[in-house]
Amino acid sequence: MNPDFLAWSGNLQARIETVLERLLPDPQHTPQTLHAAMRYATLEGGKRVRPLLAFAAGEVVGADPARVEIAASAVELIHAYSLVHDDLPCMDNDMLRRGKPTCHVEYGEATALLVGDSLHSLAFELISAHTLSDTPERQLEMVKLLALAAGSRGMAGGQAIDLVSVGQTLTLPELEFMHIHKTGALIRASVLLGTYCGSALDDTALAKLDHYAKCVGLAFQVVDDILDAEAPTATLGKTAGKDAENNKPTYVTLMGGARAKAFAAELHSDALDALAGFDSAQRLRELADFIVQRQF
Amino acid sequence: MNPDFLAWSGNLQARIETVLERLLPDPQHTPQTLHAAMRYATLEGGKRVRPLLAFAAGEVVGADPARVEIAASAVELIHAYSLVHDDLPCMDNDMLRRGKPTCHVEYGEATALLVGDSLHSLAFELISAHTLSDTPERQLEMVKLLALAAGSRGMAGGQAIDLVSVGQTLTLPELEFMHIHKTGALIRASVLLGTYCGSALDDTALAKLDHYAKCVGLAFQVVDDILDAEAPTATLGKTAGKDAENNKPTYVTLMGGARAKAFAAELHSDALDALAGFDSAQRLRELADFIVQRQF
Repeated sequence: MNPDFLAWSGNLQARIETVLERLLPDPQHTPQTLHAAMRYATLEGGKRVRPLLAFAAGEVVGADPARVEIAASAVELIHAYSLVHDDLPCMDNDMLRRGKPTCHVEYGEATALLVGDSLHSLAFELISAHTLSDTPERQLEMVKLLALAAGSRGMAGGQAIDLVSVGQTLTLPELEFMHIHKTGALIRASVLLGTYCGSALDDTALAKLDHYAKCVGLAFQVVDDILDAEAPTATLGKTAGKDAENNKPTYVTLMGGARAKAFAAELHSDALDALAGFDSAQRLRELADFIVQRQF
Repeated sequence: MNPDFLAWSGNLQARIETVLERLLPDPQHTPQTLHAAMRYATLEGGKRVRPLLAFAAGEVVGADPARVEIAASAVELIHAYSLVHDDLPCMDNDMLRRGKPTCHVEYGEATALLVGDSLHSLAFELISAHTLSDTPERQLEMVKLLALAAGSRGMAGGQAIDLVSVGQTLTLPELEFMHIHKTGALIRASVLLGTYCGSALDDTALAKLDHYAKCVGLAFQVVDDILDAEAPTATLGKTAGKDAENNKPTYVTLMGGARAKAFAAELHSDALDALAGFDSAQRLRELADFIVQRQF
């Protein structure tokens, strides 16, 4: 990757860590265990792809990074809550996440359940309690956008489709439908929320950025499937080979590795095409490169 | 109870049922099982105490009931989500709720987890997607208020304190601290959100209504503890005697039944005192009566 991009993303990853650290409840505050566990599940982890997308989209509209960091944190908290709940024994029963024991392994199932619930509420507290947009009307739209992306017609709905698809033979459109909800919805929300922090875009421009986000979100999942099938656990920081073990349909099982890679490349190219004509979209382009080329 | 109050509450209970029916996602919409389960967990159930409090508080400020019904539904969805998660095997492991099998018994644990998560997001969708207050600034405050009431310094935090208190000997202040969070936070939010739908109150009036709500919320819990210890399962619509069985500290175990009843009466009286000087607070008064005198 381009060293300038690596410096940009490294700086923002550190920034989002500091912001989350500040915004998460103090672990000295009752209930202490819950607050400690919320931090455990959120801090020191992950690639922060969603926050990076929000910052990159914010650059397109000249958004104040002090606003974007809050919107980005709200999205990241929704993502963190979903990981905690997905890892629970009744869902994926995963023991390892970001190289550490999962939240329920460390704190017990009941606390992990409440950690997810509390991070979920905290996301909506953040997105309503700080001034993030030029008008409160637009900020209410941000709340709605995040709620829709997280809910049963977004991320949680994708999880539900995933549940019923285990052991099933899905068609490619069905697999795509699942992922557009499960991971795509929140990735699209990241990009759109980043733009809401700055000057308003017209509907055509917004639709282009949304298309970029849709392609990048799907590419992210295709690459995830490839990595799950091919990368070692130590590199991933989570248990590799879980999809095959859980008999989950993936792009690799449906298309084979080579066609899955070609599909990721096609989505990458579509994502870049959607950015044609935008000034200040360099970071969005580089993020599309990063998402497709990453090895973890 | 006064027949006029019974007619008022019966009408509003029917109204909130119709509104929830309309606002919950269509069960024909993918993912169908999740959407059916969300309806199962929310419809045809409960006393709708929180919505009634929101409507009654709305009357104090002349709020449009078409606004209050949305705010009340949002609060009820948060309540419904919390019941689904609380009933899970890793929490209270309850099999019966509102006279029906609990959500995870009917739909499985994984779906129940997603039902709770989806109702949680839907609450924030509702409270942001409809015009509920005279200004969008005030409506953003409503979002924040609901998020704080639901999160780790509100309801979910109360649950976490409840978790660590099982098998412990709590002092009365500790028990009160738990309940002020676990049930009190959302009951206070119900009253405050009802008032936000109408003309703004000054801080003194708002503080009085908040004190009313705090007393009523705590009284609700004291009465719950008394009923759990004394009422039969058939009347309650949920498993009676669970607190003793689960070795949970309650007002009855800490004070004995007679003192618990006297405490409920005292909170009732404090709640009514807080309403002194308010016009149009008749329904709030009657709700305080109802909450203390109920037999289920």
